[in-house]
Amino acid sequence: MKNDSITSRDVDFAKWYTDVVKAAKLADYTSVKGCIAIEPNGYAIWEKMQSILDKKFKELGHVNCQMPVLIPENLLKKEGELVQGFAPEVAWITMGGSKELEERLAFRPTSETMFCDYYKDHIKSYRDLPKLYNQWCNVIRWEKETRPFLRSREFLWQEGHTAHSTKEEAIKETDQMMEVYKWFHHEILAIPSITGLKTEKEKFAGAEYTLTNEALMYNGVALQAGTSHYFGQKFSTAYDVKFLNKENKQEFVYQTSWGTTTRMIGGLIMVHSDDKGLVLPPRIAPKQVVIIPIGNNDKVFELCEKINTELNNNDVVTYIDKTDKSPGFKFAEAEVNGIPVRIEIGPRDLENNKITFARRDTSEKYTEDLNIDVVKYVKELLETIQKDMYNKALERRDSLTFTAKDLTEMEKILNTQPGFIHADWCGNTECETKIKEIKGCKSRCIVDEPLITGKCVCCGSDAKHHVIWGIQY
Amino acid sequence: MKNDSITSRDVDFAKWYTDVVKAAKLADYTSVKGCIAIEPNGYAIWEKMQSILDKKFKELGHVNCQMPVLIPENLLKKEGELVQGFAPEVAWITMGGSKELEERLAFRPTSETMFCDYYKDHIKSYRDLPKLYNQWCNVIRWEKETRPFLRSREFLWQEGHTAHSTKEEAIKETDQMMEVYKWFHHEILAIPSITGLKTEKEKFAGAEYTLTNEALMYNGVALQAGTSHYFGQKFSTAYDVKFLNKENKQEFVYQTSWGTTTRMIGGLIMVHSDDKGLVLPPRIAPKQVVIIPIGNNDKVFELCEKINTELNNNDVVTYIDKTDKSPGFKFAEAEVNGIPVRIEIGPRDLENNKITFARRDTSEKYTEDLNIDVVKYVKELLETIQKDMYNKALERRDSLTFTAKDLTEMEKILNTQPGFIHADWCGNTECETKIKEIKGCKSRCIVDEPLITGKCVCCGSDAKHHVIWGIQY
Repeated sequence: MKNDSITSRDVDFAKWYTDVVKAAKLADYTSVKGCIAIEPNGYAIWEKMQSILDKKFKELGHVNCQMPVLIPENLLKKEGELVQGFAPEVAWITMGGSKELEERLAFRPTSETMFCDYYKDHIKSYRDLPKLYNQWCNVIRWEKETRPFLRSREFLWQEGHTAHSTKEEAIKETDQMMEVYKWFHHEILAIPSITGLKTEKEKFAGAEYTLTNEALMYNGVALQAGTSHYFGQKFSTAYDVKFLNKENKQEFVYQTSWGTTTRMIGGLIMVHSDDKGLVLPPRIAPKQVVIIPIGNNDKVFELCEKINTELNNNDVVTYIDKTDKSPGFKFAEAEVNGIPVRIEIGPRDLENNKITFARRDTSEKYTEDLNIDVVKYVKELLETIQKDMYNKALERRDSLTFTAKDLTEMEKILNTQPGFIHADWCGNTECETKIKEIKGCKSRCIVDEPLITGKCVCCGSDAKHHVIWGIQY
Repeated sequence: MKNDSITSRDVDFAKWYTDVVKAAKLADYTSVKGCIAIEPNGYAIWEKMQSILDKKFKELGHVNCQMPVLIPENLLKKEGELVQGFAPEVAWITMGGSKELEERLAFRPTSETMFCDYYKDHIKSYRDLPKLYNQWCNVIRWEKETRPFLRSREFLWQEGHTAHSTKEEAIKETDQMMEVYKWFHHEILAIPSITGLKTEKEKFAGAEYTLTNEALMYNGVALQAGTSHYFGQKFSTAYDVKFLNKENKQEFVYQTSWGTTTRMIGGLIMVHSDDKGLVLPPRIAPKQVVIIPIGNNDKVFELCEKINTELNNNDVVTYIDKTDKSPGFKFAEAEVNGIPVRIEIGPRDLENNKITFARRDTSEKYTEDLNIDVVKYVKELLETIQKDMYNKALERRDSLTFTAKDLTEMEKILNTQPGFIHADWCGNTECETKIKEIKGCKSRCIVDEPLITGKCVCCGSDAKHHVIWGIQY
C-alpha cells in the first residue's frame, strides 16, 4: 500500500527521504536551527546500533569513558591542522551564568585534544599501554546546510581514541576498527559498503592517514559512514604524550581514532526503504515482528499472546498491536515503521488451521499450517530477509557502479546517473580539485585494486591509484 | 591493608573522598575548570547504573529519545520560574564558527523547555497520551564550587519527561518514579535512602511539588540523589501544550519530570568505601569477582581458568588478574578498586584441596574445600555481602539520626556530629531561612510521619510538618 504522506522515491528522492523520516517518526525538526529531535523510533535504532558495536568494541579490549564536552581554546589550538580543519565549524561557549569567560570554550567537534590532555598525565611507561578508550557522546559542528541524521549541527557518535607503544600496533588498530565498521555495515545493516584510504585532500585534519567506509545510497549518492584514523606521533608530539619505552627512553605514543555516528540511520533509510516507508534489516530492527489480531475473538487473542511469548522467549523481539485501530490501519503502520515480519491471525484462519506471515521487504505473504514450529519458521524468515536485503542492496550498488577512462566519460556518468565511479588517478590534488567541479564529485577512497587504464582520468599522465569517485552527502 | 595514597576517612573526609576517587581511577580533574574526566572504572559503574535503571524504565512503558542540547534563549525564558532558578548557572553559546549568533543558545541545564516545545507539535488528542519519554544525556550547570561526581559543571544524567491527560495519572507517575529511585538505592546501591516532599523553598523551579530521595553519607552529610517533579499544567500552559480531551475540549496536558545523575557514584563511595579504597555492593559492581593465581604453576592457572569460565557462564562477572605483579600488589589493587570477592589459589592450596575466598567489605577470609559448588557459593556470598552492606549503612544512618525539639538542640547536634535531624516545622520559609544560618542546614524533606512535639523547632508556634533536616553536598 502506497503511503500518502510519502513522496515517491523516484519522483523526488530528497523529499521522499524527509517524508520517511517523518512518517516513521524517526526524527523531527526543532526550534533550534539545524538540530533535530531524535524520536523514540529513531532512538531505538541508535540504541541497537550502540549495543551491537559496544559489545564488539569491548570484545576487542576497549573500555568506555567520558571526557568533558568543553575544550579550552588554547588546548584546541595546539595541533595546527586539527584546529584549521574544524575552526569554521566550532560552536563557542563564551558565558557562564552572567559572566563572560576569560577564555572561550569549544563545544567538542571531536575529542582528540581532550584525550591527549588526559593521556599526557596518565601514561608514564610502556606498562600503561595500550590505552583503548572509547566514548559515546554528542558533538557539534556548525554546518550551514543540514538534513536529519545525515548532517545535523549536533549529532551523537562514538569516538575511539587509542594510544600504543609501537607504530605497528597502532596501524593494526586502525585497520581492525575499519574492519569492525565494514562488518557492522555488511552483517548488521545489510549495506555492502566499500572501504579504502582517503586521499591527502580528504583525510581527517591532523591524521597521517584515514581509512573510510563508503556506502552507496539508492539514488547513487555516496555516504561516508565510519572513519578510522592513524595519527602516528602527530598528536602526541603536539600534546607531549610520552612514555618510557622498554629501552628506558622517552618516546611519543602512537595514536588512532575512529568513529561512527547517528548518520548511519540516514544510510539505513536511503539504502533499504521504499515508498511505503521504512524497511529495516532484521538484525538492526528494534522490533522484529508484529502480530496483528483480526476481529474481536478471544481464541485469536489467546493464540496471539501464545506466539508473542514464544517468540520473545526465543530472542525474537515481538509485540502485539492491541490498539483499537482497524487491521488495515495497523498493517500500514507496521509497514511505515519497517517491522520486518507481520503475522496476521483472524477467526477464519483459526477455523482453517492457518497463519499468515508477511514480509516487509518484498510484501510477499505466506499462509502456513498452524502446526509449524513458529519460532524456527520466523527465525529462518528473518535470516532470509536479512540476506535478501543485502543482496538487493548489492545488486543496486553494482548497477550504479561505473568505470571512467577520461573526464568526458566521468561527466557523462555524473550527468546521467551518479554512482561509484572507478577511475585511475595520478595522485595530484589539482586533478582532484578539477574533478570536483563536475557536480561536486569527490574521491571516495583509494582502493587496493589494479589500475584500469594506467592513466589519470583527469590529466592523462601516469596513474598511481585506483580510486572510487562519487557525489556525496 | 591501609592504602598509602588514601587519607584516613576519619582524619579528613573530604581529602579521603578525592583520594578514593583518584586511587580507584574513577575520575580525574581536567584542563577544563570544574569538569572531570570519568575514567573507565568510574564509567563502568555509570554503565551498570544505566542498564539497570533503563531496563526498569522500559518495563514501566517509557521510551528513550534525544532532544537538542541547545536551547534558544527566548524558548528558555517562557516559563519564568524555571529561568529564574537556572539563570545564574547557564552556559551560553554565542558563536557558531566565526559568526556571532543572532540569538544566544543555552547549553541545556535541564530539558523541560525542549520537551514542551516538542510535545506542543506532537500531542493533538488524548489518544496521543501518555507520552512517557526519557533521555540519557549531558547537562551543564555553571557551579562555582565543584567536586568530582557530586557537583561538576558538566554531568551525565537521565531526565524523564512525561505528559498525561489527567492530573491523577501524572501524580501517579511522579510517585512511581520516586519509588523506582528508592528501590534502586535500597536494592541495588545498598543505600537506605529516605524519600519525601521538598518544601516550597527547596522544590524544583517551576514544579507544583518535588519528591526527593535523600541519602546520608558516612560523615553525616546528606546527598540529594534523585528527584521527581509534578508540574501540573504550569509548563503546558507556558508552552501551550494542549490536547483534545474525551469531551472534545482543548485542555493543557499534565506533566512530570524526574532525574538521577552521575552524582550517585559519589554517594556510593561516601556511603560504603573505607581507608583501603572503594567498596562496591555486588549488584552494582561492574566486576564482581577477581581470581588471583599465586605462583607460577600450570595446574593453578588451569583451575583459575575453569572457575573463571564457570562463574562468567553463570552471570557472575569475573576476571583473572594475569599481570606479572606480585600477589600482594594484586590484592591491594583489587581492594582499592572495590571488587566484592577475591579468590586466591596457590600450589599449596591445590595440594591441600583448598580454595580461599576474601570479602572486600569485611576483609574476612574463608578457606573452603575445593569440591564445593563454587558458583553457588560465590552467588550466596555476593548476596550476603549485598545484604550486610545495606544493614551496615542502615546502622550508620540510624546512629546519625537525631531528633531536635528546639534550635538549641539542633545547633548542638550540628556542632557535634551532623546527620538527619527530625524536627517539626510550622511551614514558614522564614524559619527555614533562620535554620539555614546554622552551618547551612536545610530541610531535606517533609516526611509522612506524626509530629514530634507539635511545635516548630524554630519559632515554637504550631507545627504543620514533620521534617528531616541536614547539611548537604
